[in-house]
Amino acid sequence: MRVSELVAASGVPLATVKYYLREGVLMPGEATSATQSVYGDEHLRRLALIKALAGVGLPIGRIRSVLQLVDRPEHSIVETLGRAVSELPPYLDAPDSDGDDYSRAKAAIESLGQVYDPRFTAVAQLERALRAAADVGIPMTDERLEVYGRSVRAIAEYDLAMMPEPADEAIEYAVLGTAMYEPIIAALRRLAHQHIASSMQTNAEHPERPTR
Amino acid sequence: MRVSELVAASGVPLATVKYYLREGVLMPGEATSATQSVYGDEHLRRLALIKALAGVGLPIGRIRSVLQLVDRPEHSIVETLGRAVSELPPYLDAPDSDGDDYSRAKAAIESLGQVYDPRFTAVAQLERALRAAADVGIPMTDERLEVYGRSVRAIAEYDLAMMPEPADEAIEYAVLGTAMYEPIIAALRRLAHQHIASSMQTNAEHPERPTR
Repeated sequence: MRVSELVAASGVPLATVKYYLREGVLMPGEATSATQSVYGDEHLRRLALIKALAGVGLPIGRIRSVLQLVDRPEHSIVETLGRAVSELPPYLDAPDSDGDDYSRAKAAIESLGQVYDPRFTAVAQLERALRAAADVGIPMTDERLEVYGRSVRAIAEYDLAMMPEPADEAIEYAVLGTAMYEPIIAALRRLAHQHIASSMQTNAEHPERPTR
Repeated sequence: MRVSELVAASGVPLATVKYYLREGVLMPGEATSATQSVYGDEHLRRLALIKALAGVGLPIGRIRSVLQLVDRPEHSIVETLGRAVSELPPYLDAPDSDGDDYSRAKAAIESLGQVYDPRFTAVAQLERALRAAADVGIPMTDERLEVYGRSVRAIAEYDLAMMPEPADEAIEYAVLGTAMYEPIIAALRRLAHQHIASSMQTNAEHPERPTR
């Protein structure tokens, strides 16, 4: 297809397609003259992936990093997945001048029976989030961590069980699934709060009702 | 204590304290002269709460709304909690010109056996998140929804069970707990992914190991 057809089929504006070509994240088409190229389904698939990554907040440099991993997974699949997911937001500032203190995250991860590895960017995210909760007066207790950890583990096991086999599809699934399902989980939790609170109120208003 | 002591004890800069006084979110101190006032523990507690709400991204108008609910809960506790939590981000744009279409969220909520009520802001958040996942080619399946819903429900039940009794503390807990524990849950999921993927790799590398 010509570039105008690629624009129509992908829904990505021409200026943006040209920008992705210049930045090297979209591979060039096959030149048919000095000014024209033709594009195929692989360009359409790549544009859809770039659009999705941009949509979850990745700047162009991080999109390029993820695509390099999709195109040339150099390491074990586990390490490649870890590298790809680490390109996702949230992007944390440089560590404090007193170095990386991940003591809260380390204790939490070990109490869940998982291996602590400070190279995972999620360790820094967890440390930051644990510290913020403590700062506002609602620190994670051991009991809450146990309840959250068990439930999150069930979600993560399902996520991994559903991962497609080919390496490039697995990376795409890991990055998009991590990013796209996080807001769904957050919304489901808020809705469950409302639902449970409403049920508690109904029971409190009708104490004469037998609860058996 | 004097305002300088309030600044020192709270860690909130003087200019910010004055701004909160002007905006009416921090109640005035007791005037001891034309230019001096004294402040008490209630000012320190209020400043800590304002700081926490600002820290999770609430603009001043929404901080004021939450504090009004904390100070004068007018409705049932369930309705007040819902109103307070609805002041939290994410803030969604106005609905599409074709009106509110929450059909994906409605189907998901009903399949979880919960009551659909479009007045909850989390319904719009869920709709948006479900649509975004479908747009990038990884729509929520019924099975995934069931797994996620069951796990999130366990978390939400624990959250509600731990809610303090007095109405003002319950509102504060609901708002801060919703906001502060969301990034913890997201980080725990990413860490569980890494942990499970690493275990799978170890097993795959040692197929001769008995798995019993």
